[in-house]
Amino acid sequence: MSKTQVGIIMGSKSDLPIMSEAAEILDQLGVGYELTIVSAHRTPLRMISYAEKAKERGIKVIIAGAGGAAHLPGMVASLTTLPVIGVPVKSSNSIDGWDSVLSILQMPSGIPVATVALNGAKNAGILAASIVGAYESSVGVNLAAFKNSLKEKVEETAKEVEEKGWKEVLGK
Amino acid sequence: MSKTQVGIIMGSKSDLPIMSEAAEILDQLGVGYELTIVSAHRTPLRMISYAEKAKERGIKVIIAGAGGAAHLPGMVASLTTLPVIGVPVKSSNSIDGWDSVLSILQMPSGIPVATVALNGAKNAGILAASIVGAYESSVGVNLAAFKNSLKEKVEETAKEVEEKGWKEVLGK
Amino acid sequence: MSKTQVGIIMGSKSDLPIMSEAAEILDQLGVGYELTIVSAHRTPLRMISYAEKAKERGIKVIIAGAGGAAHLPGMVASLTTLPVIGVPVKSSNSIDGWDSVLSILQMPSGIPVATVALNGAKNAGILAASIVGAYESSVGVNLAAFKNSLKEKVEETAKEVEEKGWKEVLGK
Amino acid sequence: MSKTQVGIIMGSKSDLPIMSEAAEILDQLGVGYELTIVSAHRTPLRMISYAEKAKERGIKVIIAGAGGAAHLPGMVASLTTLPVIGVPVKSSNSIDGWDSVLSILQMPSGIPVATVALNGAKNAGILAASIVGAYESSVGVNLAAFKNSLKEKVEETAKEVEEKGWKEVLGK
Amino acid sequence: MSKTQVGIIMGSKSDLPIMSEAAEILDQLGVGYELTIVSAHRTPLRMISYAEKAKERGIKVIIAGAGGAAHLPGMVASLTTLPVIGVPVKSSNSIDGWDSVLSILQMPSGIPVATVALNGAKNAGILAASIVGAYESSVGVNLAAFKNSLKEKVEETAKEVEEKGWKEVLGK
Amino acid sequence: MSKTQVGIIMGSKSDLPIMSEAAEILDQLGVGYELTIVSAHRTPLRMISYAEKAKERGIKVIIAGAGGAAHLPGMVASLTTLPVIGVPVKSSNSIDGWDSVLSILQMPSGIPVATVALNGAKNAGILAASIVGAYESSVGVNLAAFKNSLKEKVEETAKEVEEKGWKEVLGK
Amino acid sequence: MSKTQVGIIMGSKSDLPIMSEAAEILDQLGVGYELTIVSAHRTPLRMISYAEKAKERGIKVIIAGAGGAAHLPGMVASLTTLPVIGVPVKSSNSIDGWDSVLSILQMPSGIPVATVALNGAKNAGILAASIVGAYESSVGVNLAAFKNSLKEKVEETAKEVEEKGWKEVLGK
Amino acid sequence: MSKTQVGIIMGSKSDLPIMSEAAEILDQLGVGYELTIVSAHRTPLRMISYAEKAKERGIKVIIAGAGGAAHLPGMVASLTTLPVIGVPVKSSNSIDGWDSVLSILQMPSGIPVATVALNGAKNAGILAASIVGAYESSVGVNLAAFKNSLKEKVEETAKEVEEKGWKEVLGK
Repeated sequence: MSKTQVGIIMGSKSDLPIMSEAAEILDQLGVGYELTIVSAHRTPLRMISYAEKAKERGIKVIIAGAGGAAHLPGMVASLTTLPVIGVPVKSSNSIDGWDSVLSILQMPSGIPVATVALNGAKNAGILAASIVGAYESSVGVNLAAFKNSLKEKVEETAKEVEEKGWKEVLGK
Repeated sequence: MSKTQVGIIMGSKSDLPIMSEAAEILDQLGVGYELTIVSAHRTPLRMISYAEKAKERGIKVIIAGAGGAAHLPGMVASLTTLPVIGVPVKSSNSIDGWDSVLSILQMPSGIPVATVALNGAKNAGILAASIVGAYESSVGVNLAAFKNSLKEKVEETAKEVEEKGWKEVLGK
Repeated sequence: MSKTQVGIIMGSKSDLPIMSEAAEILDQLGVGYELTIVSAHRTPLRMISYAEKAKERGIKVIIAGAGGAAHLPGMVASLTTLPVIGVPVKSSNSIDGWDSVLSILQMPSGIPVATVALNGAKNAGILAASIVGAYESSVGVNLAAFKNSLKEKVEETAKEVEEKGWKEVLGK
Repeated sequence: MSKTQVGIIMGSKSDLPIMSEAAEILDQLGVGYELTIVSAHRTPLRMISYAEKAKERGIKVIIAGAGGAAHLPGMVASLTTLPVIGVPVKSSNSIDGWDSVLSILQMPSGIPVATVALNGAKNAGILAASIVGAYESSVGVNLAAFKNSLKEKVEETAKEVEEKGWKEVLGK
Repeated sequence: MSKTQVGIIMGSKSDLPIMSEAAEILDQLGVGYELTIVSAHRTPLRMISYAEKAKERGIKVIIAGAGGAAHLPGMVASLTTLPVIGVPVKSSNSIDGWDSVLSILQMPSGIPVATVALNGAKNAGILAASIVGAYESSVGVNLAAFKNSLKEKVEETAKEVEEKGWKEVLGK
Repeated sequence: MSKTQVGIIMGSKSDLPIMSEAAEILDQLGVGYELTIVSAHRTPLRMISYAEKAKERGIKVIIAGAGGAAHLPGMVASLTTLPVIGVPVKSSNSIDGWDSVLSILQMPSGIPVATVALNGAKNAGILAASIVGAYESSVGVNLAAFKNSLKEKVEETAKEVEEKGWKEVLGK
Repeated sequence: MSKTQVGIIMGSKSDLPIMSEAAEILDQLGVGYELTIVSAHRTPLRMISYAEKAKERGIKVIIAGAGGAAHLPGMVASLTTLPVIGVPVKSSNSIDGWDSVLSILQMPSGIPVATVALNGAKNAGILAASIVGAYESSVGVNLAAFKNSLKEKVEETAKEVEEKGWKEVLGK
Repeated sequence: MSKTQVGIIMGSKSDLPIMSEAAEILDQLGVGYELTIVSAHRTPLRMISYAEKAKERGIKVIIAGAGGAAHLPGMVASLTTLPVIGVPVKSSNSIDGWDSVLSILQMPSGIPVATVALNGAKNAGILAASIVGAYESSVGVNLAAFKNSLKEKVEETAKEVEEKGWKEVLGK
């Protein structure tokens, strides 16, 4: 495992089942990370401290997940020059996820957040790895292998469906 | 004019034409206010300082307007125990206003923002006055007079339309 | 418990499981309240009577919850000078909650409703307490303690996740 | 012109350019009507009085138009047993018309509003005429003639396009 | 029971559990009706025949329910001068009900459909009764009694909640 | 020009500026067509006659454009076994085009409409040509040439931008 | 069974339960097809090869299904002159299906995709058959019989409901 | 100016006025870039070639902008291990921008795109610079200076508004 380069944060422990997918894929791609809870609304000062010190601790990319009126990714982005990846989490009283998507995506000019799909924590991890991998060749190699494995899995299922026919595959 | 009880803030000078409507109606209702620019994303530390000191300066209600991924109202609410009224401003690249509405309205449990209609700064001022007026009778009296004037204006136009007929009113 | 300062109303008994969260947090924050059923569409005259007499009974803030084409918060706001907090309730045939959100939020100029998140009755209670607390210091103190407890809970879970690691926390 | 059977009301004089289209088509279809301004939020007591007395004055159908959080049609429907037709008007700060559409359409069980298209005041007039015409044969005859004129206009333009070709019709 | 004055149709037998609520309330309000299946897309000629003959059979109002791209209410409205009430049914592959709502509500100028809420068949029945009741006093009397029963039910639950308190009512 | 194989219809002459783009590209691709006005709501019987006779007249594909609650494409599809391409037209009181899109796209099981983008009449023409071209080689050849021209135009502008630089291209 | 004329592809094996409905109806309508897995994002080169060779293999229509940001139908359409039918599949983290609907429907000028309803694979099969049937009479005959069977099924249920009454049909 | 590290591509020359904002800010932040036109739908093979060779040419980040059913960012992401930033461009027949936002944001698991706000090309440039700046300190320094200038501009306007008052600033 390479040194810690990605910081994963989320607004609440209830986001952990989704957000841990980012950690899992970073493990798999050989990228070091740290993971903790930081709430924009409940611990604003902790958030500032986290964001301001991330770069000097060696973090290269921050992944921040939050639901509803999700301010964590954007606020962290306002407090650091590091790239921040935002994961819109579909919280329990969300209006179909639109609230977290729009409050992360539609950042004003000057303060971007790299937004991924609703609940897309795994993709956030891959995106973080692609950033690290652009500068660190071993991670780039892992990514290429990962992409190849995706391709091979599709080719296998294609072969299965073509050979067996869809009825057998579906058990009809 | 009573003493300063309402703080009006907005993320950018471009929000001033909308947000000044809050100031205008507070003037009319006899409620003292202050007005300045505070950006959650461009001046996060200034925002914290503003929010943390508002109560001790005598402010009773904060009105915060912002557009797009609008984090100012919610972040200020996280930093004070005062009531915060949020005004979703329809910014130039807004997706029909949904972004500012949802990123102000859908605050997580524990940190409410009193949200008003899109571009509803005038209503934010009236709401602030109704809060002040619940405890300060002269403002309550002004509000009652204001409500009465709304009623009288409708009654007058009703009378005009009934007497002249809609064709004459529309100049047909 | 301080004297009754908040009136909680809702359109139907079926709203009680959601709306009782406002009562619960007001209990916790030491703010007196009353709670009853008032329907804009089924008991319009009862609604008028409730709204018109609330102020003289000592009520400072009204919390009104309703679903679908939710007219109760706006109509009550038209009948009193007190601040009215609207809770959009997601009713059974709601179109994803948009109907109650928009019919409470988008009030015309002159008659604001302080709208909170979909099903956000707890936040409505906290908002009402913040209004009372702006003028009554004991409630302000309770609110500050409540905010602090939110912060501490996040810090505890952060510590737990950092110490145990996410895998152990999730039982993986 | 037959006796007054339709009451047309709207929340504000600014709705008149749209709502007068209902009056215009009722004139054309030979249905008597009255038209005035009644605001749910600015003149709630006037609204109650209007709705409660409409039936005894001989009104058979009420057409109510309003914008934004449009409560007039639903509140009038709660105060009368007459059929109420609601016209969602797209007001200036509307969120694309969704607010008025949903706050008129999504009425709770027990209190229906017959909703027509956004800004569909002309259709509201035709619908009112179809209600009157179900019981009064002369209006039914007028409606049938009106429908026939719509058909003939399409047939004429079809003929024009077929004979001249689309290029000539478009002046290309 | 009075003579058959309302025709209830729906696109598919799968709409019957929803659409039967219209029949049920018409039974309760003493309005005679007929009910059958007519599909715009699967039996277009049957639909035309139904719509063209409804008036001469004594029908005064047609209630038509359909889901998805719901064309039945609008097409029937194009083929009769009777008022047509449209019920948007949320079908299994519906996009949250928006498809049926918009394809019934947004009829072009000249051909209105009286649209009720999503799955609002009961309200469609009440609306039909209010149309009949505008001309037939016994139905008007039944409607007034029905409205009164709605009011009384709210008053009872209000009394229960006020007397017992919300905790006991919720069994807490 | 090959024989007439595509029928282009639209609900109103006001749709002609959009719908004529289908005719224009069919001209360019060498596919014969006819074009006329047929309204589902204003001329339902004309629509039935058109749809039922199209196949025997040699038509292979029907392109139908309509706005708002757009029933023409779906109703025509219910009356023929030919493929029907639907063009959602954004009419003047449309709710951002959602109404025409959903009332054409979301057809029930059994009666498909091949829907193209909002105002996408040109694409409807190309799609019709691709259907004809699957069976008639000369049209397939024309389509391949058309696709190639699209590619070449992009390559030219790419070259221009690369050689001149974006500033010169934009005149900065 | 006639020779293979339709190619059915989908982005993932998880789309098979939906997409197999296209195969099933093509079987029933006597149209030969092939079915396999091709992913735009995981096997882009396989996709290109599939699209470029489809026509020379005798395929007349391609049906492509995908979910989320669904690029398969549009990318295949960019690589062939054959008509491409797109099926928006509602994937697990979809935002209510809007993502797949819009990323298939809203193709730019020049590259149409014939889009069907959300999860509308059966309709995609029928649409493909209608394209084949426009040129191959036996398939046209099968389609006509299929349409007739739809009609008869509605007529039967209509008869059942009319004879038994809705209460007995619903078991009330 | 440092060496070329960012590749900016867009689907059409009509996207250049928006997309050039990415180039402009990269110039300002001292990050080398190249810019050209690549269309997923019109030049699919050119797109593949571009994406596959970008990394070996020294590109570290790709910025891709497109409108409507915007497939360029996602398809490029499927063909490289570099991070890809997607800019949803609001094209002329866009449905309020939702189509491009969702077809870029909602990428399936395995193939992320770093999505920025609608028309947010400037933010895409800043995001690309933050990625470069995480590994190249001079760019990090430029970014910090840029952020500081944003802060100073807000502080200046705040001072202006506080000193002059909003009326004078607005020229009232």
